[in-house]
Amino acid sequence: MPAVQHFHPGLDGVIACETSISYLDVENEEIVIRGYDLIELSRKVKYLDLVYLLMNEKLPTADERNRLEQELKKEYDVPEQVMSILKLLPSATDCMDALRSGISVLAGFDPELDNLSNAANRRKTIRLLAKIPSIVANSYHAIHQQELIPARQDLSYSANFLHMITGKEPSALEESAFDQTLMVYSEHEMPNSTFAARVIASTTADMYGALTGAIASLKGKLHGGANEAVMNMLLEAETPSGMEALILNKLKNKERIMGFGHRVYMKKMDPRAMLMKEALLKLIEEKGSRELYDMCIIGEEVMRREKGLYPNLDYYAAPVYYLLGIPIDLYTPIFLAARTIGICSHVIEQHDNNRLFRPRVNYLGPRGLHP
Amino acid sequence: MPAVQHFHPGLDGVIACETSISYLDVENEEIVIRGYDLIELSRKVKYLDLVYLLMNEKLPTADERNRLEQELKKEYDVPEQVMSILKLLPSATDCMDALRSGISVLAGFDPELDNLSNAANRRKTIRLLAKIPSIVANSYHAIHQQELIPARQDLSYSANFLHMITGKEPSALEESAFDQTLMVYSEHEMPNSTFAARVIASTTADMYGALTGAIASLKGKLHGGANEAVMNMLLEAETPSGMEALILNKLKNKERIMGFGHRVYMKKMDPRAMLMKEALLKLIEEKGSRELYDMCIIGEEVMRREKGLYPNLDYYAAPVYYLLGIPIDLYTPIFLAARTIGICSHVIEQHDNNRLFRPRVNYLGPRGLHP
Repeated sequence: MPAVQHFHPGLDGVIACETSISYLDVENEEIVIRGYDLIELSRKVKYLDLVYLLMNEKLPTADERNRLEQELKKEYDVPEQVMSILKLLPSATDCMDALRSGISVLAGFDPELDNLSNAANRRKTIRLLAKIPSIVANSYHAIHQQELIPARQDLSYSANFLHMITGKEPSALEESAFDQTLMVYSEHEMPNSTFAARVIASTTADMYGALTGAIASLKGKLHGGANEAVMNMLLEAETPSGMEALILNKLKNKERIMGFGHRVYMKKMDPRAMLMKEALLKLIEEKGSRELYDMCIIGEEVMRREKGLYPNLDYYAAPVYYLLGIPIDLYTPIFLAARTIGICSHVIEQHDNNRLFRPRVNYLGPRGLHP
Repeated sequence: MPAVQHFHPGLDGVIACETSISYLDVENEEIVIRGYDLIELSRKVKYLDLVYLLMNEKLPTADERNRLEQELKKEYDVPEQVMSILKLLPSATDCMDALRSGISVLAGFDPELDNLSNAANRRKTIRLLAKIPSIVANSYHAIHQQELIPARQDLSYSANFLHMITGKEPSALEESAFDQTLMVYSEHEMPNSTFAARVIASTTADMYGALTGAIASLKGKLHGGANEAVMNMLLEAETPSGMEALILNKLKNKERIMGFGHRVYMKKMDPRAMLMKEALLKLIEEKGSRELYDMCIIGEEVMRREKGLYPNLDYYAAPVYYLLGIPIDLYTPIFLAARTIGICSHVIEQHDNNRLFRPRVNYLGPRGLHP
């Protein structure tokens, strides 16, 4: 038996994993992904380059990147039964729950489900990345009794994903902004959902199961659900002055304001939020109406002034998704789709060098009772 | 920022939660459930008494116990669409994956899904406990193109569960043995699946999502999957001498032998295994053929002699389930169904006093690369 440690609420500051995938360097404000700065990457390469990097520990050549895209396109098709199952979900189903059910059901169709070797896990990662845009978009359409939208082979991975959601072919700027949101959401060290996936994978449970658990986690308002809450707040506020009044009122009522602060960053602005702020400004320039941007700025200022808190990624990703014409219910499922490469990379790392997670507890209940 | 700690592989010995639900007192070989010894409880009360105890922090009167059984019976029905979805799963689907999909889909039918209050969480616990036997049994029947078996209101909770699996009305001894397996599987401090559920619930994700993650975890061979592996080994061995030869051969090939040892108990016999060993002997007496029992004894002796390892619960629960006529693929789903009360109790405790789980990592990868 190892010596029992002190209680660490929320495992705050506890090192739970060794990883060579990513690291939040808080002191230098850098999100390190396989040795690169995520923000620099997000300015210079595309989402599929980042996918390749996460899977292969190096950036791809143009050829390697195209081959990855071809591999993904070959695996776009989702089994008919999965779509039939999505159509049977009640219309009140949350889109994250629909996505969770879709991935859970899809497991039974993967011929290598229980093969946890590195090679098989990498093939499953490709299949999941290929199919998840369709499950995200079409679970929404299915729940809303809309026609399902098939994948288009002639569009890029990101443009096809956005097209399946909106039914419209995106402009170059829209495609690029959407691709950038996928990049900034792709991987982020050990957030709750990634941790949940590694905990589950450590029983030698399969990748689909681990991803199912991560989806369940990301649904929570303290995690992925924040981007949807931000957009609903912006819509409720209506104007910049309305935004200030709304936030001040929420603060007065001691309500939690979503989109600000982060367990790890704490007192600094999430560098991904800055990138999304720029993307938002570019979209505003193409699409007119500066009001949404001004509301965001006011909200940022009020929260810094009143609470000393800085925006996190969700705060600026939400209005970007809004301007891209994406239904609010899909913000968190898209976050999950973008993060799938990160989660799968962690599952692969866990299976390659596994140790079962099994912590202990402080027991606070009674003792010595008899029936 | 809290001071960053040392790396704890598998969170071994780390106190991750405070709880008043249960505790493994390794030194005194006691599994404490709300102050009671699980083994003493399992000899003196029934599964629903234990369910009541876990939910209400006290054992029920006969009246309270009957009221709980009535509440459960009122909630037995599973929505038709959930059954239709189970029938659409491919026939190769693992029963744990089918159960995971069933619970994931069921979430959309719970009118209080996103209400995380203590009262709503307790009502969801009742609904889950009421419906999970049907989902476990009928997902098996659906996958195997067998007719679904409806719940019977005239049988006890445990007898109905067993009847839905086998299609046969159990004898008093069978009902009692099955009820006892549910008790010993009901709750066990902070195993991986319970931990996964609490990690997920800590984002304020809902109880169904947390349970979905726990099912994913329990599927793993290092966790719930062990009871099925044990039975397959017993069937492969065929005879007591075959059992000895099989284990010795596996040890020679450095294969892992399932059903022995436990991260927390380590060098002592799991007290639940002893109880199951007694239940097995009683079933053998009713059903004849001592050979299965003798095989188990030989296996226990060989492992103690060769490796100094003792049987865990799965080792003796597997042959009990076999003698009860339960298909091997359902051993782990039944484990999960029995553990649902434990997992839901932990989710309630987590939601009542929440702190987001968000550990850190040791980053071992490169730094300072540029695209």
